Amino acid sequence: VGDSTAAERALITSKNNRKVVDIRKLRARKERELTGLFLVEGIRLVGEAVQLGADVKAIVVAPELLDSPFGRGLVETAEERGVPRLDVSAGVFASLSLREGPQGLLAVVRQRWAELGSLPPPAEESVWVALDSVQDPGNLGSILRTCDAVGASGVILIGGATDPYDPTAVRASMGSVLAQSLVRADYDGFFNWASRGGWRVVGASGGAVTDYRQADFGKPLVVLMGGERQGLPEEVLQRCDATVRIPMTGRCDSLNLAVATGVLLYEVFRQRHPPGQEMRPGRGESDPARPL
Amino acid sequence: VGDSTAAERALITSKNNRKVVDIRKLRARKERELTGLFLVEGIRLVGEAVQLGADVKAIVVAPELLDSPFGRGLVETAEERGVPRLDVSAGVFASLSLREGPQGLLAVVRQRWAELGSLPPPAEESVWVALDSVQDPGNLGSILRTCDAVGASGVILIGGATDPYDPTAVRASMGSVLAQSLVRADYDGFFNWASRGGWRVVGASGGAVTDYRQADFGKPLVVLMGGERQGLPEEVLQRCDATVRIPMTGRCDSLNLAVATGVLLYEVFRQRHPPGQEMRPGRGESDPARPL
Repeated sequence: VGDSTAAERALITSKNNRKVVDIRKLRARKERELTGLFLVEGIRLVGEAVQLGADVKAIVVAPELLDSPFGRGLVETAEERGVPRLDVSAGVFASLSLREGPQGLLAVVRQRWAELGSLPPPAEESVWVALDSVQDPGNLGSILRTCDAVGASGVILIGGATDPYDPTAVRASMGSVLAQSLVRADYDGFFNWASRGGWRVVGASGGAVTDYRQADFGKPLVVLMGGERQGLPEEVLQRCDATVRIPMTGRCDSLNLAVATGVLLYEVFRQRHPPGQEMRPGRGESDPARPL
Repeated sequence: VGDSTAAERALITSKNNRKVVDIRKLRARKERELTGLFLVEGIRLVGEAVQLGADVKAIVVAPELLDSPFGRGLVETAEERGVPRLDVSAGVFASLSLREGPQGLLAVVRQRWAELGSLPPPAEESVWVALDSVQDPGNLGSILRTCDAVGASGVILIGGATDPYDPTAVRASMGSVLAQSLVRADYDGFFNWASRGGWRVVGASGGAVTDYRQADFGKPLVVLMGGERQGLPEEVLQRCDATVRIPMTGRCDSLNLAVATGVLLYEVFRQRHPPGQEMRPGRGESDPARPL
């Protein structure tokens, strides 16, 4: 595979090609769960996958569309690592793509799931986010992105959650889904793990007495959030080490889930990295062109 | 209209009924801009529209679907105010609805747009958010919701922005689009207005030197955010009174726009309402069942 030349590779021009059909099926959650695979689209995200050493099972290239030298370099790197490459026409690529203005590059990647029992023991600064029944893949992706930005370890999904490997979640995560750890758990397993490991579980609730800015986000920490439709059940709040609320003065009485999680994670960040104190800069800190 | 009885009202059963077709067209931005109208769907949101005194032009009811007494009460209230009512079959309603599990209630509401020149002069606590080229209606709706929660005045849309009256934005705003002020402006008009009114404009940028937690969010304030695709242009940053960045220690070098705006607005909130200080509770503060 790795040493085939462009001339030897056949360009797939049929949307009904078996491999193309199999890849297209990965848009559906059921097929992703059956195969343990998911799709990563676009030069930036495929670049993250390759750079982070994700288990890339195949790479799909539309030579007509992929004119970026960086993108072509990625394809070469993947091929050197022995990743099978599929060349397709622009029309076939469009049938796989979920983006406007497809860039002609897509990767099939193996999902990574961790088990609570095999997570590393808490380090001093460890933070996890646990989400109860998160429904919106865009929210889940945004939360993974915030976790990544503040240096959290990952997300524990409790209850019936949306799929973090949904294309919308992958895109909203800006690749953080490839870097953050993902765990599925039920409440008994979660609280057992937390109590054995000495994790402090802080639950968010509009009915909590404590203002989040006055809470102790002692380390190691799990921030537990309710889903979009309803907050955390009372019996879950009672099992938390502490509960906090985000104060609101206006008309609206709740925040978007990703926004609320971001506000809390930046309070955790504040307690660990007070303003004015030196810290290890993130990858993007020195890049003045990045959006924020 | 107001005193017609159920027996007198005809049930519309055709999706091609002229009024139904006109209402369905309001899903498209072009038609919303032509007519100045937009759609509000669901019992909760229609309830907000009626309670906030929005200019409701028509109400669409699917009697087969609308079984909530609160929903039926809303229809009565609207009718008492002289709002025309359209009764449609469940099938016709489904052809108008963008929700799963439609509740059988929808309102056609007049958009409200304010002009910079006619905004009230700044009060001591005034906060606005200005957004450059916001693209995602979900982000815009979430930002309106956060503005509402922290008691901000509204959103100023600069450049080519998505439509705050897009159904996705309306839903993501949880009705805040009905309560917050909306303004469209270009940069010259915006900075002229800000400078004449004595507004402090703080721009967000990944390349800024000042940590947002050490910034002066002096009153009255406008928080200016770049769009999802690229940050604020350098020439715009130079016109700001101050620029701030959100620190990041992890791998990811940016946040979702709604999350970043939320983190900044809650820092503004902190400077105006320090933790532990009494404040006027919001509508939802006393409701322990609300999600957050």
